[in-house]
Amino acid sequence: MASVDLNADLGEGFGIWELGDDAAMLDVVSSANLACGFHAGNPARLAHACAAAAHRRVSIGAQVSYQDLSGFGRRFIDVEPDELIADVIYQIGALQALAHTAGTSVRYVKPHGALYNSIVTHEAQARAVARAVHAVDPHLPVLGMAGSAFFAEADKLGLRTVSEVFADRAYRPDGQLVSRREPGAVLHDSDQIAERIISMVRTGRVIATDGSAVPAAVESICVHGDSPSAVDIARAVRQRLLGEGISVTAFV
Amino acid sequence: MASVDLNADLGEGFGIWELGDDAAMLDVVSSANLACGFHAGNPARLAHACAAAAHRRVSIGAQVSYQDLSGFGRRFIDVEPDELIADVIYQIGALQALAHTAGTSVRYVKPHGALYNSIVTHEAQARAVARAVHAVDPHLPVLGMAGSAFFAEADKLGLRTVSEVFADRAYRPDGQLVSRREPGAVLHDSDQIAERIISMVRTGRVIATDGSAVPAAVESICVHGDSPSAVDIARAVRQRLLGEGISVTAFV
Amino acid sequence: MASVDLNADLGEGFGIWELGDDAAMLDVVSSANLACGFHAGNPARLAHACAAAAHRRVSIGAQVSYQDLSGFGRRFIDVEPDELIADVIYQIGALQALAHTAGTSVRYVKPHGALYNSIVTHEAQARAVARAVHAVDPHLPVLGMAGSAFFAEADKLGLRTVSEVFADRAYRPDGQLVSRREPGAVLHDSDQIAERIISMVRTGRVIATDGSAVPAAVESICVHGDSPSAVDIARAVRQRLLGEGISVTAFV
Amino acid sequence: MASVDLNADLGEGFGIWELGDDAAMLDVVSSANLACGFHAGNPARLAHACAAAAHRRVSIGAQVSYQDLSGFGRRFIDVEPDELIADVIYQIGALQALAHTAGTSVRYVKPHGALYNSIVTHEAQARAVARAVHAVDPHLPVLGMAGSAFFAEADKLGLRTVSEVFADRAYRPDGQLVSRREPGAVLHDSDQIAERIISMVRTGRVIATDGSAVPAAVESICVHGDSPSAVDIARAVRQRLLGEGISVTAFV
Repeated sequence: MASVDLNADLGEGFGIWELGDDAAMLDVVSSANLACGFHAGNPARLAHACAAAAHRRVSIGAQVSYQDLSGFGRRFIDVEPDELIADVIYQIGALQALAHTAGTSVRYVKPHGALYNSIVTHEAQARAVARAVHAVDPHLPVLGMAGSAFFAEADKLGLRTVSEVFADRAYRPDGQLVSRREPGAVLHDSDQIAERIISMVRTGRVIATDGSAVPAAVESICVHGDSPSAVDIARAVRQRLLGEGISVTAFV
Repeated sequence: MASVDLNADLGEGFGIWELGDDAAMLDVVSSANLACGFHAGNPARLAHACAAAAHRRVSIGAQVSYQDLSGFGRRFIDVEPDELIADVIYQIGALQALAHTAGTSVRYVKPHGALYNSIVTHEAQARAVARAVHAVDPHLPVLGMAGSAFFAEADKLGLRTVSEVFADRAYRPDGQLVSRREPGAVLHDSDQIAERIISMVRTGRVIATDGSAVPAAVESICVHGDSPSAVDIARAVRQRLLGEGISVTAFV
Repeated sequence: MASVDLNADLGEGFGIWELGDDAAMLDVVSSANLACGFHAGNPARLAHACAAAAHRRVSIGAQVSYQDLSGFGRRFIDVEPDELIADVIYQIGALQALAHTAGTSVRYVKPHGALYNSIVTHEAQARAVARAVHAVDPHLPVLGMAGSAFFAEADKLGLRTVSEVFADRAYRPDGQLVSRREPGAVLHDSDQIAERIISMVRTGRVIATDGSAVPAAVESICVHGDSPSAVDIARAVRQRLLGEGISVTAFV
Repeated sequence: MASVDLNADLGEGFGIWELGDDAAMLDVVSSANLACGFHAGNPARLAHACAAAAHRRVSIGAQVSYQDLSGFGRRFIDVEPDELIADVIYQIGALQALAHTAGTSVRYVKPHGALYNSIVTHEAQARAVARAVHAVDPHLPVLGMAGSAFFAEADKLGLRTVSEVFADRAYRPDGQLVSRREPGAVLHDSDQIAERIISMVRTGRVIATDGSAVPAAVESICVHGDSPSAVDIARAVRQRLLGEGISVTAFV
């Protein structure tokens, strides 16, 4: 039977502020990308999220970010590689200790927001993130985008790279995402999204905006959970996968 | 031959800002209490401090603190125990990862500033810090003040407690420090300080302000390094110890 | 015709995070206590909140706080008076500029959370806050609790003090609030709350937990808006006031 | 008699951390660019700096920055214009209140670090900063670099622009600064620096690296004070100016 991973960003509240419905999403996904305090996630929230993920046997990943609470890590910061390496190590270690005390562990690393986007092409920052992960543990896989500078750097260091696709995003013929600034970049119909995901998992291809079928190595599917409708879409994707005989299983 | 540990607070700059002369102090002490980012110490600085300590084979401790950059961790914060537990775990884990990538490890935990002072008597916060350390690693010793609520809670959990005395501070007849707000609380003469330390190590007692000899379990001596004269005092203490045939060795 | 002010805490999101329904509450209240960035409220959110308040002709107050984003300003911090004075001046000034660019101005100051509670009795911090307000503008009124150390210090400096009562809180016979840790401290029935408010405005007294009528100078009524039911309660209070012929008008 | 302004960045410590010798520099300069808390400068330090500047009748400018304490505002952040406008208004207002309570006022605005560099060419951010200044007070001059996008946007809004040159930096033939990454970018000899400044003030031209004389409107000279030798250079520049009969006077 085929199998695929479902991942989502969780633990992204801060202090009094909530974001999304972590409890609902932990029943949907197999992998939880937990914030590490730099763009969201104060320690007490993260401790709670680790315990909840451990309880449901959901795999925990460290969602490392630029240090930018007020911008939610969504703004590019021109940080020097040496600083970025240390920032990423710091975040992974902090989450490792919280996961450990919850009886589980950090199983992978996924960059967040502007850092995720930046290291698709920014080689110096891509190398810094890959080196940081490798320095913490050369057996930690990284979750990200196939074809990115980040994956190229991770490959050089022998890190396992795990490719994800986005359930609700349109793709360009070159395999990259259509920018959120363009119309049609984000899909909203849960049936259409689920159908698309099934096709991606079955065929290893995604239908781009021009109708062409672009190869897409689907090891994990990123779903969103930061709004009630997003949770519904994530649930629909999971149900369709299970209905098609595709199990939802963490990649690590 | 007798032996004692010398510890100092290091890694307490932040970003562009320096504090003290870490390099000089690493040649004096056997244990370095490194900041963890909550009162001082951005990750890049801490990575550098870990490497420098590893190079000199100085033992690294996690100097955990309230989250208070603008107050340098010197202001009591009435944080809830659950939050404090998570804050301490987060800090230890962050430093562990940085120490690990420098080829060394975090060997002990020492609370900083207002948290240090608070948990001499504040039982709920003392218990929170002890539980956090125990949750990360029950074999991590804690460095602090004999007779404190913190040590009582650490004892209950089976943590090793290591008692320190302050080289440059006056003691009350009850074994507590004279408040910095009172005259004579801080000693400045390096000969007097060194003499006093030798006496403490040899006799296991400290001469209080009223002339009485108070028992003091001297497993470690805290020296300061945040001013040029402080570095000189630390060096003088070390030289006197060595001259008296007392080796300076980390307690762990 | 009688008149009373309704005030609520607004602008208390941060970055991506929302808290409460500012738009709904601005239709209910006559005075908006806007966060100033220290416990909540990044500048872009505050700029938006100032514009929205100006558009509805709602009076803006600076809701000054301890510097504590992760604790939402709800944790006592033992900050020195000189630092607190500067922190409060900084916050008021920041909000003044944002209000000014929205075509309005900061009309009063109300301390937030743990600072509000602390300066009911903490004289040094109470004096610091009063001095800060006076230094910025001796004509700025302060909104707070009658009988507090804060009001005593404000009186000494000649600041106008405006007494508020809490719509949804139980009172002790001495006129103080029942602690949130005790049962019955918070009222939830909107009819009961509205009834109680009418009685307070009409009689100048509040019925305490023991049934006694305690004098309460009701110049403003604090309502909450950080949950859907809180907004409903606030609307109910406003409707009852209007229905009784009591207008809802800012005190300044 | 000719006259020129000398400006320097001051108030750039944070909490316990010092940077430079503000007291020494306040005896040298006519204009003090005070940090506003986003890259440096906690409120208590800024209050003290305002008082010291007022005491010496040195003109105060708001040195606005990206929100980046750990990077000292030296890293480009891709912040949206609306957020940048609000960030700048917030900072100016905060410093205005502190200056006001010190008996003086904010007389101009100068962007700091990466923001300063960015808005030489980044039109959207340049426009945002100019709009923010204009929104606070259309009579506030801005201090910066002639020929920058920032000055172009400021001109459009009718803001007064004041051109500065850097005492210790080499210039390219196009009038821009040689990058710090290139050799010879920073001058260190105080005689050479002073000589150069005199020539710039007298001729309105700066000698570029290729020996050509480039027009430079010298309304203000930026000197640094963040090291003992920098203070010496600043003093030397001032002495030479006075010796040549050129008075040192604030531009506003």
